[in-house]
Amino acid sequence: MKEIYLDNGATTKPADSVIRKMTETLEVAYGNPSSLHRKGSQAEAYIIEARKIIADYLRVDPGTITFTSGGTESTNTAIRGAVIKNRRIGKHILTAKGEHPATSETLKRLAEEGFEIEYVDIDRTGRVIPESLRDKVRPDTVLFTCLHVNNETGVIQPAGELGRILKEKNPNALFHLDAVQSFAKMPLRPVEWKVDTLSASAHKFHGPKGIGCLYIRRGLQIVPFINGGGQEKHMRSGTENVPGIAGMGEAVRTAVTDISAHEAYVKSLKMALYQAVLEAVPDAAVNGPAPEDGAAHVLNLRFPGVRSEVLVHSLEDYGIYVSSGSACASNKPEERSPALSALGLGRTEMDESVRFSLSVMNTQEEMRETADALREIVPKLRRYTRR
Amino acid sequence: MKEIYLDNGATTKPADSVIRKMTETLEVAYGNPSSLHRKGSQAEAYIIEARKIIADYLRVDPGTITFTSGGTESTNTAIRGAVIKNRRIGKHILTAKGEHPATSETLKRLAEEGFEIEYVDIDRTGRVIPESLRDKVRPDTVLFTCLHVNNETGVIQPAGELGRILKEKNPNALFHLDAVQSFAKMPLRPVEWKVDTLSASAHKFHGPKGIGCLYIRRGLQIVPFINGGGQEKHMRSGTENVPGIAGMGEAVRTAVTDISAHEAYVKSLKMALYQAVLEAVPDAAVNGPAPEDGAAHVLNLRFPGVRSEVLVHSLEDYGIYVSSGSACASNKPEERSPALSALGLGRTEMDESVRFSLSVMNTQEEMRETADALREIVPKLRRYTRR
Repeated sequence: MKEIYLDNGATTKPADSVIRKMTETLEVAYGNPSSLHRKGSQAEAYIIEARKIIADYLRVDPGTITFTSGGTESTNTAIRGAVIKNRRIGKHILTAKGEHPATSETLKRLAEEGFEIEYVDIDRTGRVIPESLRDKVRPDTVLFTCLHVNNETGVIQPAGELGRILKEKNPNALFHLDAVQSFAKMPLRPVEWKVDTLSASAHKFHGPKGIGCLYIRRGLQIVPFINGGGQEKHMRSGTENVPGIAGMGEAVRTAVTDISAHEAYVKSLKMALYQAVLEAVPDAAVNGPAPEDGAAHVLNLRFPGVRSEVLVHSLEDYGIYVSSGSACASNKPEERSPALSALGLGRTEMDESVRFSLSVMNTQEEMRETADALREIVPKLRRYTRR
Repeated sequence: MKEIYLDNGATTKPADSVIRKMTETLEVAYGNPSSLHRKGSQAEAYIIEARKIIADYLRVDPGTITFTSGGTESTNTAIRGAVIKNRRIGKHILTAKGEHPATSETLKRLAEEGFEIEYVDIDRTGRVIPESLRDKVRPDTVLFTCLHVNNETGVIQPAGELGRILKEKNPNALFHLDAVQSFAKMPLRPVEWKVDTLSASAHKFHGPKGIGCLYIRRGLQIVPFINGGGQEKHMRSGTENVPGIAGMGEAVRTAVTDISAHEAYVKSLKMALYQAVLEAVPDAAVNGPAPEDGAAHVLNLRFPGVRSEVLVHSLEDYGIYVSSGSACASNKPEERSPALSALGLGRTEMDESVRFSLSVMNTQEEMRETADALREIVPKLRRYTRR
């Protein structure tokens, strides 16, 4: 059966060039980058190359990029590092409702350890209200952390404005931006935005799973999270995942060459999907920002009277893969959909919501086929539900 | 040039079947295991399979195996988890001198946080003296952690005896065994040995870098180290590294089929290498245990009057790759060679020591060629040094 993969927010299909790069590394450059001999430097060269590609994309110094095992580790490192760094300043942390569990679960732990977690206000699309951040930053605020692009709704936070406001009110407060859903999908400017740390994960943009990176602003010293042999300039110990790093570099290279054209293409897919779905199911409703405002690759729709879990499986029979809630391991809707919960959706509404998430590998034809499938499926499912 | 890779303690060449398994996963089973649809369950199946292979090898329940990004993360998780688990019991931690930095650096941090780190005595080969453990375990001992096989010298700790003594003296003290250098190289029996947690890393036995696992005894609840979406039954959050996990499973499967025959073969290589080197360089001296007593794959030799760094590069000209010290990122000999330092070797002696580390991919012919190369190189280097 043909496969129409519209769950690119959960993970993506690795690009052929990424797989080739990884295979090359696995077969030939298998040395340990810390080894003094040629097999070591051969492996290290792949790391240097990947780091440079990423640094060039972010317009930062390569020394600011630390490779990690993925977005969750990056965000854990950034948050833990920030609160230790600022331990003499206070215990007040600002964040938004609807964050990814990598953030919210880490903050839950910190709350147990005595930190005060406060939420800045969001508007009805999930966007942080900048004035709310201004009101809530205090002298003892050690960190403000938020998603750049929300994984469920695609809402884009005004990172530059938030960074400016945070630093105006408290120059010591650190700004962590979880860019897992925007990295290699749109231009990112951490220096300009006054971002201190920024998380990314390769498998969200056709790179491999098990590899990510953390940008740490030049001059900022944060305590390493994983300790050991002192790799990555002591920031992240453990033998470097050379095939993963090489694959991530290749994925970034491919993604950011013509990044604006890629973004525009994916946006055109999303707008086409949205129009076609509305024609097929006129009462489908958008969760989060208006499609033209949100990230190019995320469209979250509610189909009243249809249980999303059933819809996911019905679409599956057409070879179409979408998601109900985020791909985290929980079964509770409010945990699977923290962003929808933050928008005030009730349990039923959350249970009726589906995320379509796109990538450059999708086609206009696939958008039409998806809308056609929904035209057939939704009325049938409604008959079952209403029986 | 032909390549004779004798640095398998640092890392190994991934097996062809491992690379095939990873490529298959990358190309086809690219879904997120947490996704509800078929692409999710397809990916999850690879994890279930790998977990079972590993559990069968260790003779444990698959639920006791948590996948991590590697040995260093596993050991960080085990140590941090153990001290939090036992925080009401005390702050006394026992370990040995000459441990891997994943342990020693984590303990250094814990010392800064108020823990008392005490060292059990070792004999002149680096083996822990069981009676010393018995003497030093206290009611407030929260953890005893040691390497199963030392990465530099190959000394094998009597894990079963140490576990028994520890639990006799203090049943609450946890036993962490860092089995990175023994996993998939010899039979391991964590249940029988009363091991609570055990670390492993795939790239040490022809699996990929960036993946490892942590065995956590059934019934033992330790606090997760990386928090987020709740993957791995909440023990290790972050999208699972499916290609890495599948590759690790395949590497274990290959290694443990006929594990005793593999171990005997590698031991025969080591004994042959040792004999041939002694004939070529009669004053070469063993560091650590006698070759017949240590792990099959590690031979650490001192070549008096020869600087190991120079020897590493000279052997490189013959296509032979060996190591001076461990493959950690430090340049200080006592940090690069903590195990030799623990044996009381001086700086000069450490600087004259080279580790040959073997694998099933090596051949008897390679052992002879290495000895022949040393026969040519060592006298030349001695002339330079003595000039």
